[in-house]
Amino acid sequence: MRPTGKLHLGHLVGALHNWVNLQDTYHCFYMIADWHALMSEYEKPSAMAENSLEVARDFIASGIDPERSVVFVQSQVPEHLELAMIFGDLTPLAWVERCPTYKEQLRELSGRELTTYGFLGYPVLQAADIALYRADAVPVGVDQLPHLELTREIVRRFNSLYGKKVFPEPEPLMTSTPKLLGLDNRKMSKSYGNFIALSDTPETIAKKVTQMITDPERIRLADKGHPDICSVFSYFSTFGGAVMQEDVRDWCEGAKTGCTECKKRLAHMVTEQLAPIRERRKALTDAKIKEVLHHGAKKAREAASQTMDEVRKLLHLAA
Amino acid sequence: MRPTGKLHLGHLVGALHNWVNLQDTYHCFYMIADWHALMSEYEKPSAMAENSLEVARDFIASGIDPERSVVFVQSQVPEHLELAMIFGDLTPLAWVERCPTYKEQLRELSGRELTTYGFLGYPVLQAADIALYRADAVPVGVDQLPHLELTREIVRRFNSLYGKKVFPEPEPLMTSTPKLLGLDNRKMSKSYGNFIALSDTPETIAKKVTQMITDPERIRLADKGHPDICSVFSYFSTFGGAVMQEDVRDWCEGAKTGCTECKKRLAHMVTEQLAPIRERRKALTDAKIKEVLHHGAKKAREAASQTMDEVRKLLHLAA
Repeated sequence: MRPTGKLHLGHLVGALHNWVNLQDTYHCFYMIADWHALMSEYEKPSAMAENSLEVARDFIASGIDPERSVVFVQSQVPEHLELAMIFGDLTPLAWVERCPTYKEQLRELSGRELTTYGFLGYPVLQAADIALYRADAVPVGVDQLPHLELTREIVRRFNSLYGKKVFPEPEPLMTSTPKLLGLDNRKMSKSYGNFIALSDTPETIAKKVTQMITDPERIRLADKGHPDICSVFSYFSTFGGAVMQEDVRDWCEGAKTGCTECKKRLAHMVTEQLAPIRERRKALTDAKIKEVLHHGAKKAREAASQTMDEVRKLLHLAA
Repeated sequence: MRPTGKLHLGHLVGALHNWVNLQDTYHCFYMIADWHALMSEYEKPSAMAENSLEVARDFIASGIDPERSVVFVQSQVPEHLELAMIFGDLTPLAWVERCPTYKEQLRELSGRELTTYGFLGYPVLQAADIALYRADAVPVGVDQLPHLELTREIVRRFNSLYGKKVFPEPEPLMTSTPKLLGLDNRKMSKSYGNFIALSDTPETIAKKVTQMITDPERIRLADKGHPDICSVFSYFSTFGGAVMQEDVRDWCEGAKTGCTECKKRLAHMVTEQLAPIRERRKALTDAKIKEVLHHGAKKAREAASQTMDEVRKLLHLAA
């Protein structure tokens, strides 16, 4: 996860819930990718350190357990850059130039100067991030599949060049997660500011929900609404159970409850669901988070240095 | 210097003699660039560690003093990769794509798969190599000037983005050094095998000199020769004094001495000049060289970590 700001509901339902569950089956590494963030934030990196702490806080408050999983900041494990350099040497330029997510990011983050050498190497560093821990599997969404395929190609090339299966080819862990749109029905994004942060107060949540876009044809309470085009309803679908969803549909299609009231109930529900995270966040002081990250970096470096010892020997890098 | 093999006469007259002298005026860092070598040697890196030791041995035998200068192997100072990553993030792709030495190397090292992501970043890593030690000056040949100009552009961009003159703009130290061609009159190059190594034995030197190309129009001793197109004469010009040069010209143009005899005298002269280097090489055991490099890496890391502490703080990378 890149530390470009506080995490929001989209991260919670799209990644964190899944990541928390994966801890029961896998030995997980959860990385705060500040080197990746720097690739797009280098012009104004002033919030990076603070954001790294906030992301770690959100991770742990959401249920990622730093005793079971390794939670760490990428830049505290320099081995990432060493493996990325080696991978870069054996990665044809065409592989990175063709990477569809590269083009997508260039579009999405327009307004920044991203046609840089570093940003082009984004998927090479990502391959190193994965391979450094000899990951068997990576939880990804569909849009990230080409990236993972590139990682698989790079580790295959490495293993074949040096005649040793140092790295497993990581498999995608595709978990179907609900797609949560932003408050304005656009893609939820930090740059659009159309999200509810995990750390938002009940007041902020209420205010943000009030501004959500509902069915534009429903002007008066007596107008029957169309919940399937209403973003408030989509949030009920994600955060409420089946019974709740039926109720809300009935309020709307039956013209029984107005949008204002409906939003109040949604705000209440979201506030309730975020309450335990918000409570845990409060207990996580900066000192505590730094301790967790220090511990995580130590564990990550242990695993990373084992891998790199083997890699250095294979490539005759030790003098 | 990239550790792609033992150093030869071209390195001695084109770089080492100058580097030895620079020690009287500057605090010098002499780096064995194994990360750079890996960019072109990644397909067969088996000789890298050995070559690094040999280059260090050649450095010291030629008069580079590890007590006055810092002699180290690049891969033992991971800070190079950290600064290279940051520089990569702020270096427009066009800057590296246009680098003339990139295109030249692609031509020169043809037969290898060099259109890789890593190799494209060669000048970015080189900029980091220089800036990491806040170098004021770099001894370069004319062909390396565009590289140094790129380094100057990158550090200017860094200093301007982060509002602090962290890095000086390094000046080129242009020393006019004799251009020594290979034994076959082509460019002296490891890949052509047309060189005399600093470590060659007197027998090998004699054998290599015998094969040198002389004036093709001089067939018999009585034929007057043309020293200015003779590679043997060009070596006398580089390694002999003015008197010696006049003598050799007279032998040749006056048809007084045959090519075979002339080559014997050249072989003798080169052998004499390399004798002290060869002697010092013998005394430099692997253990001694490793100790020197260990000491050098320690000193390099001290300087590098001071720079990176400041850089990390400026970029808010510390969590």
